[in-house]
Amino acid sequence: MAEQFAAVEIISAKRDRFELTDPQIDWVIDAYVRGVVADEQMSALLMAILLNGMNPREISRWTDAMIASGERMSWQALYKPTVDKHSTGGVGDKITLPLAPLVAACGAAVPQLSGRGLGHTGGTLDKMEAIPGWRASLSNEEMLRVLQECGAVICAAGSGLAPADKKLYALRDVTATVQAIPLIASSIMSKKIAEGTSALILDVKTGNGAFMSEPEQAKELAETMVALGKRAGVNTRALVTAMDVPLGLTAGNALEVRESVEVLAGGGPADVVELTLILAREMLDAAQIKGKDPETALKDGSAMDHWRRMVRAQGGDPDGKLPVAREQKIISATDTGVISSMHALSVGIAAWRLGAGRERQGEQVQAGAGIEIHAKPGQSVNAGDPLFTLHTDEPNRFERAEAALKDAVKIGDSLAERLPLVVTRIS
Amino acid sequence: MAEQFAAVEIISAKRDRFELTDPQIDWVIDAYVRGVVADEQMSALLMAILLNGMNPREISRWTDAMIASGERMSWQALYKPTVDKHSTGGVGDKITLPLAPLVAACGAAVPQLSGRGLGHTGGTLDKMEAIPGWRASLSNEEMLRVLQECGAVICAAGSGLAPADKKLYALRDVTATVQAIPLIASSIMSKKIAEGTSALILDVKTGNGAFMSEPEQAKELAETMVALGKRAGVNTRALVTAMDVPLGLTAGNALEVRESVEVLAGGGPADVVELTLILAREMLDAAQIKGKDPETALKDGSAMDHWRRMVRAQGGDPDGKLPVAREQKIISATDTGVISSMHALSVGIAAWRLGAGRERQGEQVQAGAGIEIHAKPGQSVNAGDPLFTLHTDEPNRFERAEAALKDAVKIGDSLAERLPLVVTRIS
Repeated sequence: MAEQFAAVEIISAKRDRFELTDPQIDWVIDAYVRGVVADEQMSALLMAILLNGMNPREISRWTDAMIASGERMSWQALYKPTVDKHSTGGVGDKITLPLAPLVAACGAAVPQLSGRGLGHTGGTLDKMEAIPGWRASLSNEEMLRVLQECGAVICAAGSGLAPADKKLYALRDVTATVQAIPLIASSIMSKKIAEGTSALILDVKTGNGAFMSEPEQAKELAETMVALGKRAGVNTRALVTAMDVPLGLTAGNALEVRESVEVLAGGGPADVVELTLILAREMLDAAQIKGKDPETALKDGSAMDHWRRMVRAQGGDPDGKLPVAREQKIISATDTGVISSMHALSVGIAAWRLGAGRERQGEQVQAGAGIEIHAKPGQSVNAGDPLFTLHTDEPNRFERAEAALKDAVKIGDSLAERLPLVVTRIS
Repeated sequence: MAEQFAAVEIISAKRDRFELTDPQIDWVIDAYVRGVVADEQMSALLMAILLNGMNPREISRWTDAMIASGERMSWQALYKPTVDKHSTGGVGDKITLPLAPLVAACGAAVPQLSGRGLGHTGGTLDKMEAIPGWRASLSNEEMLRVLQECGAVICAAGSGLAPADKKLYALRDVTATVQAIPLIASSIMSKKIAEGTSALILDVKTGNGAFMSEPEQAKELAETMVALGKRAGVNTRALVTAMDVPLGLTAGNALEVRESVEVLAGGGPADVVELTLILAREMLDAAQIKGKDPETALKDGSAMDHWRRMVRAQGGDPDGKLPVAREQKIISATDTGVISSMHALSVGIAAWRLGAGRERQGEQVQAGAGIEIHAKPGQSVNAGDPLFTLHTDEPNRFERAEAALKDAVKIGDSLAERLPLVVTRIS
C-alpha cells in the first residue's frame, strides 16, 4: 500500500517552523513503529521539534498517537477511584514507596506503573527490587489482583503500553533529544493516560538535582502535562517541588527502602514525611475521597499494613533483611559551622558512581550501594563530624564518588537561601 | 580503544548553540565513517547544524575532516595550471560541456570531476552519457592520461574522494538536512579541494530554478565556499548567476549535448554562449593564463577539436547519432503577445517528469527525454505558435509534464523584470 506521507516532507515542515497536521503526526508515529520511518529520519524530526517546538494541539496529538500505538488499560472492575502519582525524578526521591500504600490505606486504588533509573536519579523499581523476593513484572491480571487485594500496586509498565514511546525514548537517549518539553510531556503522559488512571498528581522536580533545573522550565513542563491530562479526561494536577537538596537522609536503593519503612512506621525524615503527606492529600482530593487524614494512616499502622500486603503480593518479604553493601566509608566535615547548602546533583552523582544507578539502559545496579546523609542544611557540625557514609560493594568506586562530593556541602554562618518544598501548584 | 568523545556530547553542544571544537569535528566525521557514530546520531547533529549554524572556523574544519576521510589528488605531473568550474545546478545548465574543452583549448588543464542529477536539475554525467559509447568512470591513471592528451576530462568523482561526504550526502537526502549553507558548502568544497585543482570558479545559481532561490542566500553560499577554497590554497572565485529562466533552448540529456555542440561549432543560444565565455575568462584569469581569447577558440574550431578528442578518449563517438526520444508533443501558445517570463523550476520539473531526471539516487534516466524551448522571454508569439516540444520514451509521462508547464509561461505586453545573467561576483 502506498504511504500517506513521506518522512522527508514532515521533517522539512517542522524544520521550516510549520505546524504539523493531525494526519501527519498520526502517520509519522505509526510509520515509525512499523519501521517505514527510519531511526535517522525520526531523530532529525525530534531535533527539529526540540529546537522549533510544538504547539499545544501538536503535543496533544503526538501524545494521542503514542497512546494509539498500544493498549489502554482500564480499572473499571475495581469500582474504586484510581489515582496515580508521577515524579520527574530527583535525588533521594523515594516518595512513591510510602505514598502508594498510604493513599491505598485511605481508600483509593493506586496503580503505580513505574520505571527504572537512568543517570543520577534512582528508579522506583530499582528501589523496590532491593526487597528480597520482590518482582516488578506482573501480567495485567496480576496487577488487577494486587490492586484489589492491597489497594496499591507498584510494578513495571508492560511493553504493551505506548510502545511508540519506548522506541522513541531509546532513540532520544542516544541522539541528545531528551530535553524537550513537548517530548518529555508526551512521553510521560502517553504512558499515564494509557495506564487508565482516573486522577493523576505530577511531582515536577526543579533545582540542581532535577532534569528541569530552572523553576520556570519545570512550571512550563507541569502546565503542558496538566493540559494533556485534562484533555484526555484524567483529573490532573501538578506540584513543582524542590530538588536543590536531596530528599531525606538516604540516596540508594536498599537505603531508601529502609527510610520509606521508617516513614510508614510513623518516623522518618521531616522533609520526606511532609512531601508524602502533601502529595497524599492532593491524590485523595483529586480522587474525591473526603474525610480521610493520611497523617492518621501513618500513625495508626494502616499505611504500614498496606505496604506489607503489597510487598508480599509481589513475592517480597517485608521482614526480609535488606541488602547491605560490603564496604562503607565515612566522609567528615572539614569545618565547624552551619551547613548552608548541600548540592543535590553532586550527591546523586556520587550515589550513582557508588553503584546505585546505571549509565546505560539494561545495566545492573547494586542494591546496597548509596549514601547516608548525617546532617542536612541548617544543622550545625564540628570539623571531624561525619557528613556522609558511602556504601558500595566495590571499594574502587569510593574515589570517584568522593570527587563528586568534594564541593557538595558548604559550611558557613547560616543557611543559604533555598527553594521552598512546594514551589508552585498547577491545577 | 576508548573513543575520544561521545556522540551525545557533541550533538548536545550544537543543540545548545555551542561551537564545536576542532577535535570534536575531527572525531565525529571519522567516527561516523567508522560506524561508531550511528546514522540516527549524525542526522540529529545535522539538523542541529541546519537550525543553529556553524561559524567559519567550524565549517572549515568540517570540510577538512571530510577531505581527510579520503584521498587527495594531485596534478603536479601535468606541469600546467589546473582550473575547475562547479555549478550548483540549474535548468538547462549544460555549460560544463562546452566550457571544459574551451578552456583546455586556451591552455589550462580542466579536471572536471562531476556528478549525476537528482531532482529537477540535470547532472553533467547524465548529459555526457547520452553520447554513444562514452563512459564516466575512469581510474586516476586514466584521468591523468585524458587530461594530458586532451587538456580536459569530464568524469565521475572516484569513491576515494571525500567518502565521508558521500555517506553524509545520502543521509542528508532522506533526513531533510540538505538545505543548510554550512553543509552544502562543505560538501561541494571537500570534493573540489580533494580533487586537487589549483583554481576554481563557482557558478552559484539563484532564482526559482536554483536550490538557492534567493540571491542573498546564494551570495552567502558563494562567500562561504570562496573562503573555504582560499583557506585551502585554491584560487577560488564565485559568480552568482541567474536561474529564473532556463539556460538556452533545451533541458534534457541528449538535447543539451546537441546544444553544447552547437556552441562549440560557433553557434548556439546567446545566453549559453555568453555565460560560457564569462566563465571561461574567469577560469583563464584564475589560472593566470594571459593573452588567450576564448571567443576565438570557439570560432577557429580549436575548442571543438578539444571536445572531440576528449569524447573519444573516454570511448565516445563525437560523430555518433544522439538518442532521440520515441515520442514528441508540441505545446503551443494560447495567447498572442510578448513572452514576459518563463518559470525555470516548472520547465525543470516538466523535463524531470518526462524522464530526463531521477527521483532517487541510482535510478536510470532517459537519454532522449526533455524539452525543447521554441521561444524565450522577450520574444513575440502568436496564439498557436509552438512554445515547447516535449520528448519522452513513455507517452504516459506527457500529462504530468504538461501539468508542470501549465503556468510556466506568461504572455503579456512586455518582458517582466528578470535577474541579470551575472547577479554578483565574489573573489
